[in-house]
Amino acid sequence: MKFSQFFIPTLKEIPSEAEIPSHSLALRAGLIRKVASGIYSFLPLGFRVLKKIEEIIRQEMNNSGAIELFLPVMQPSVLWEKSGRWKEYGPEMFRLKDRNKRDFCLGPTHEELITYLAYLDLKSYKNLPVNLYQIQVKFRDEMRPRYGLLRAREFIMKDAYSFCRNDDDLVVIYKKMYDAYCRILERIGLQYKVVEAETGLIGGSYSHEFMVLAENGEEKLVFCPACGYSANYEMSKSISETGKENKDNKINKWGDFTYPEQGDRCINCGKELKIEKGIEVGHIFKLGDKYSKKLDARFLDVDGKLKPLVMGCYGIGVSRILAAAIEQLHDDKGIIWPPSIAPFTVNIIVTTEKNSELSKASDMICKTLKKLDVEVLYDDRDVSAGIKFKDSDLIGIPVRFILGRKFLGSRLIDVEYRKDCKRVELPVDSIPKFIKEFEAANSLK
Amino acid sequence: MKFSQFFIPTLKEIPSEAEIPSHSLALRAGLIRKVASGIYSFLPLGFRVLKKIEEIIRQEMNNSGAIELFLPVMQPSVLWEKSGRWKEYGPEMFRLKDRNKRDFCLGPTHEELITYLAYLDLKSYKNLPVNLYQIQVKFRDEMRPRYGLLRAREFIMKDAYSFCRNDDDLVVIYKKMYDAYCRILERIGLQYKVVEAETGLIGGSYSHEFMVLAENGEEKLVFCPACGYSANYEMSKSISETGKENKDNKINKWGDFTYPEQGDRCINCGKELKIEKGIEVGHIFKLGDKYSKKLDARFLDVDGKLKPLVMGCYGIGVSRILAAAIEQLHDDKGIIWPPSIAPFTVNIIVTTEKNSELSKASDMICKTLKKLDVEVLYDDRDVSAGIKFKDSDLIGIPVRFILGRKFLGSRLIDVEYRKDCKRVELPVDSIPKFIKEFEAANSLK
Repeated sequence: MKFSQFFIPTLKEIPSEAEIPSHSLALRAGLIRKVASGIYSFLPLGFRVLKKIEEIIRQEMNNSGAIELFLPVMQPSVLWEKSGRWKEYGPEMFRLKDRNKRDFCLGPTHEELITYLAYLDLKSYKNLPVNLYQIQVKFRDEMRPRYGLLRAREFIMKDAYSFCRNDDDLVVIYKKMYDAYCRILERIGLQYKVVEAETGLIGGSYSHEFMVLAENGEEKLVFCPACGYSANYEMSKSISETGKENKDNKINKWGDFTYPEQGDRCINCGKELKIEKGIEVGHIFKLGDKYSKKLDARFLDVDGKLKPLVMGCYGIGVSRILAAAIEQLHDDKGIIWPPSIAPFTVNIIVTTEKNSELSKASDMICKTLKKLDVEVLYDDRDVSAGIKFKDSDLIGIPVRFILGRKFLGSRLIDVEYRKDCKRVELPVDSIPKFIKEFEAANSLK
Repeated sequence: MKFSQFFIPTLKEIPSEAEIPSHSLALRAGLIRKVASGIYSFLPLGFRVLKKIEEIIRQEMNNSGAIELFLPVMQPSVLWEKSGRWKEYGPEMFRLKDRNKRDFCLGPTHEELITYLAYLDLKSYKNLPVNLYQIQVKFRDEMRPRYGLLRAREFIMKDAYSFCRNDDDLVVIYKKMYDAYCRILERIGLQYKVVEAETGLIGGSYSHEFMVLAENGEEKLVFCPACGYSANYEMSKSISETGKENKDNKINKWGDFTYPEQGDRCINCGKELKIEKGIEVGHIFKLGDKYSKKLDARFLDVDGKLKPLVMGCYGIGVSRILAAAIEQLHDDKGIIWPPSIAPFTVNIIVTTEKNSELSKASDMICKTLKKLDVEVLYDDRDVSAGIKFKDSDLIGIPVRFILGRKFLGSRLIDVEYRKDCKRVELPVDSIPKFIKEFEAANSLK
């Protein structure tokens, strides 16, 4: 792809609205543009990253036996009245009326809708277990939209809903989703932690959050490096309030009904606790029969009895992962995309202006890379090498091929890695070998 | 994919709400389920078809130089007030207020939003021409939602918007889109016609509609088999009203300000006109500067002057093509998917119940097909062969492999084509050759 024929409107200035790096860099690198508070357009570069994240999620979901479908954004109020959440959700739910004055909401989540589908079409134990998912735009009217894509009002997520005969089967799918989420974040290449969490508005008995570690994360998480115990901050307090801990023992502050601090002792093993900040990107729940009872989604079991379906739900934020990746992986020059989700893998930069031999060489290298199925951005713009380097740093393509005067004599490309700025010289004939090694090192194929 | 592990809730009864075959069959084959009037869930089988249509559209758009992005569903009223369409659109637009009482609509189309993006980021002739597209859910509050996906209130479409320096460049992109739409419909394998059309609420100077021919189509189209002239029905009347025709000549009725009839004579060549029915699946428009002037989207041209961007827009319905394909390609037993967009290519049916040797053979054939990258549905359900055949006809998989007692002795599979019910015998070792020929015959790879 030639830069001049693509659409990457980078910005020199730091946008005044941006409070944290991921927000600022997403705007500056031309990934997104604001349309209204908490509502963004994904420009072509941002769209490419979204698609890569989606594809990794889709592969891992399919591998774990989940089946993809697509539910509507608009949901009739009647289903939400049955679940009790039409009232419960409050002002965070976008609501509207159609021309016949019927009430709808814009799906903030899809428990009601999928349970209605189960009510219609999952009537026998023979249909179970089944785990259905979608990748779709979601809507929440946040009181204070901020941090760009991290707290947006319109965002993209993958949500899955499982239906089982009983809790034993649910445990199996819950574990599969837990493992799938770990694989997704590992494949993308992000540092994360899984923590026990509260169930909130979604309800149910049990849940885990997946946190991408980042300095500017809105969530605190508490973990014990010694025994591996971890919980989100809210949970670490609520556990204390359930009285599980021994007040007098004083091995940590949970028993005092306050939040733990760095260095407090672990309730499990007595070692020192750590506190870090993270961004919640995934959340999985055991729902049980909360929704199936209220929406009358029952199935005929082997024993001939009608029973409520036993449900789980599993969400992971697609646009949120994009932002979390930037938040975790950037420096003061720009984004440092992990190769798994980079919009392009290689950026070709010619440092000498208007040299026809170098243009020809670049075209040839583009062709070679395309044949190797490598996504390449060739910066063919009529601008200085300095601008090309600055934009390349900003948009964070993992590898750049630099062609200058040296190339003309030697046929050597200067290869530079965005991650650590390391440079190596690459003979043009060795491109296939280089790509093969790069892809193997980054688990790309 | 095993049928028992997938989710295909077929229906025996013809749903009372369905007025035409595509609606009835989409429900019966378990492609969609109604959520509210004009609002549907896409079940896994329908989702697979959607994705195939999307992928063909995406490939042809990318090949024609268009660039994909993703705009939000929620659009602030301020942009629509600038274009004048906040009022113009009337009750067909879904509107809502956020928690701060600000007005938004759910995008029925995205001219305003993309023009705002152009206003922000397309400031120089160096950025032009550019053609940006997205595949996304759209919303129109139809007065009378009906015919299932054909007149839905929430639906999926691909919309593209081009920005050029002048009309000459626009003509080039318009032609590219015209050709891309033809290729899309040809690759899918649908009979269609392109007709001149009115511009309606979108505006602009010039437009073409792409009509999939179907008996139950809502649109009439007039065409001349002799000279190739064609127009949609509204256009054929409006042309007459502009007074282009010679009233006295009487070569057709257009001059009488009425609609033409089958057998009337063509204004161009005097031969007999034909009238057919079709489903509008695509519409392309030359917009000119209608939106760029109103939204102040100007660029600095080579001559140093600020000029309004010259726009075109190009829409094609993804979910509508799904329905139009069923409408054109079905019989009284069910859907007859063209192989290009079929949810699976091969359906394996074992006619003898509970025979372990046949189950083993089926598993082996599944593996062989998967290795050949063929999407296969293996009907492993514990139901009669009759039910399997009925469901197979209904869901319309192009090829079925039938394994019965005969297979045990001969290793011969009975292959049956959904399209014409033709049967051939296939030795199990010849599967790779068969698939290669089938894919070549159907331009699948």
